[in-house]
Amino acid sequence: MKKHNFSAGPSVLPEFTIKKTAEAVLDFAGTGLSVMEVSHRDKEFMAVMDQARDLFKEILDIPSGYEVVFLGGGASMQFCMVPYNLLNKKAAYLNTGTWASKALKEAKFFGEVVEVASSKDENFSYIPKNYEVPADADYFHITTNNTIFGTEIRKDLDVKVPLVADMSSDIFSRPVDVSKYAIIYGGAQKNLAPAGVTFAVIREDVLGKVDRPIPTMLNYKTHIENGSMFNTPPVLPVFAALQTLIWLKEQGGVKEMEKRNIRKATMLYDEIERNKLFKSTVKYEEDRSIMNICFVMADEYKELEADFRTFASSRGMVGIKGHRSVGGFRASCYNALPEESVKALIDTMREFEKNH
Amino acid sequence: MKKHNFSAGPSVLPEFTIKKTAEAVLDFAGTGLSVMEVSHRDKEFMAVMDQARDLFKEILDIPSGYEVVFLGGGASMQFCMVPYNLLNKKAAYLNTGTWASKALKEAKFFGEVVEVASSKDENFSYIPKNYEVPADADYFHITTNNTIFGTEIRKDLDVKVPLVADMSSDIFSRPVDVSKYAIIYGGAQKNLAPAGVTFAVIREDVLGKVDRPIPTMLNYKTHIENGSMFNTPPVLPVFAALQTLIWLKEQGGVKEMEKRNIRKATMLYDEIERNKLFKSTVKYEEDRSIMNICFVMADEYKELEADFRTFASSRGMVGIKGHRSVGGFRASCYNALPEESVKALIDTMREFEKNH
Repeated sequence: MKKHNFSAGPSVLPEFTIKKTAEAVLDFAGTGLSVMEVSHRDKEFMAVMDQARDLFKEILDIPSGYEVVFLGGGASMQFCMVPYNLLNKKAAYLNTGTWASKALKEAKFFGEVVEVASSKDENFSYIPKNYEVPADADYFHITTNNTIFGTEIRKDLDVKVPLVADMSSDIFSRPVDVSKYAIIYGGAQKNLAPAGVTFAVIREDVLGKVDRPIPTMLNYKTHIENGSMFNTPPVLPVFAALQTLIWLKEQGGVKEMEKRNIRKATMLYDEIERNKLFKSTVKYEEDRSIMNICFVMADEYKELEADFRTFASSRGMVGIKGHRSVGGFRASCYNALPEESVKALIDTMREFEKNH
Repeated sequence: MKKHNFSAGPSVLPEFTIKKTAEAVLDFAGTGLSVMEVSHRDKEFMAVMDQARDLFKEILDIPSGYEVVFLGGGASMQFCMVPYNLLNKKAAYLNTGTWASKALKEAKFFGEVVEVASSKDENFSYIPKNYEVPADADYFHITTNNTIFGTEIRKDLDVKVPLVADMSSDIFSRPVDVSKYAIIYGGAQKNLAPAGVTFAVIREDVLGKVDRPIPTMLNYKTHIENGSMFNTPPVLPVFAALQTLIWLKEQGGVKEMEKRNIRKATMLYDEIERNKLFKSTVKYEEDRSIMNICFVMADEYKELEADFRTFASSRGMVGIKGHRSVGGFRASCYNALPEESVKALIDTMREFEKNH
């Protein structure tokens, strides 16, 4: 049976990426060796790293003055690297969910942290607006997409202090005005690569302003100066990321991705609205994520939750169980998820409705 | 032409690991999904993580009181995590090469560091002995195998303070008396897995003794308490590591590996001694690495270096160029390197000798 992979991350990757990586595990770039056993200093892999960096910049239309690095450790390590490199006295954080809270918590190891707003009071079901960012903050941190709660900031904010964004789960899902950000980072295991590589887009002029000494591996400058090759990079995940970037460009880039993502998300939100059994968990339409679509059983059908999970699973749906802090269901519709999978889920929801 | 992969790392992996990983990239554990796109919380991957941890403990015969974690970031990140977690006032380091020096340098961010001995005066061509480790050091750090210089500490040292060892390039090459160590860590990209995963074996009672607050991701306790699943682990590299561990056990474990490694290394060192064109770079026989075998042209044949490199390359030898700080050649003979490859290199050295 065809599987429809709605996992929140690691998650569906383009067939192109999977095919190319499977080939390279057996023979990488005609070297006769596996991509898992070539030296990262070999010219064939150096070319992969260079091309991945260049394509990342091209597809996201990154202006000059910024550098892109590929690191290990996941976005969670960035929660600590960002304040290590940027927080001198005070940082401002917008609390929109579990990951935003974790990022904020780490910053407290390094200085004063102002939570400018939080939607925790309503289980993070909306994106706070009308908050004020302190003018003397070293930076303002946001989580653009809240994977667990299905909310998203899909506009590039205007703020007067350096803007830092965790885009782990919506990078490359839409065009981004990079010039509005000081740092954009994310774990790559949603729209880009298998788990094991993390990206950071860094405006170089924000670095070098903190008083504390920074351990070498935690210092962004180390990785910028060494082209992400200060130490052995995660070779295979970087190779796979490059394949996704090649695919992304061929498909028409982020503009085309946004079009497809909005189409997929609209189809599914429309069905959630229409179907008597389900309801969205997000309070305002404008805050709905186009990446992670969260829904629960309507109040009068609550007892059907386990049944629908079983039914959907029997129809090939994978990974649609909602996070325990929200319950219900979460359909993650990343770039590589085919429209066909969204349609299959909608058909499943309709069939289930008919039966009840 | 058959390639013989002598790369220093990332480096040759067992054919079993490559084959199993290539299969899993296309279909992981019968899920119908790639190992690159399954959730790390799926039961199939949880089983991989659990089995990898258990086999790691079993093969290395790790006593109770220790835990094994799999992390991202490479051994270079451990250079910073070790002092973050262990250095309260003073640490002692043995300086046996480039990586040992880097580890030592990072520790200085966290407190007083005593270099108990160094072989830098003779380009790290030997392992210092007869040094004294300060009794009040929080720990003593060694690099058991010096990949670049071809020296190795192949005995488990007796010291009175907690012993911390970077075993990136000789883990699983021989039986180790783990009870003599407080922490053993390493990048996995030599004897275990593709680049992107790092292991740490931690005696739990050494943790929790420093005064400083430790950011969550840099705290060993975080990863121990969460079974290496605090954040998304590098899924594919962990999967590949498990395949190598399965292979290792089937082959007879670390005792059998040591036997094979000594046999391979002896063959090659004997040829270096015998062949008039070459000489070893290691000062004392007892310090010779069985993993990375470094040699240069004998003084009267120095001008043949580039020729031999070309000749060896034409015979299928990959990655035998020595590191720039030593020059000449380095044949890395990790567990997965077949004896046949060592024989092919020896034949190449003999043929080259005949021609000159």
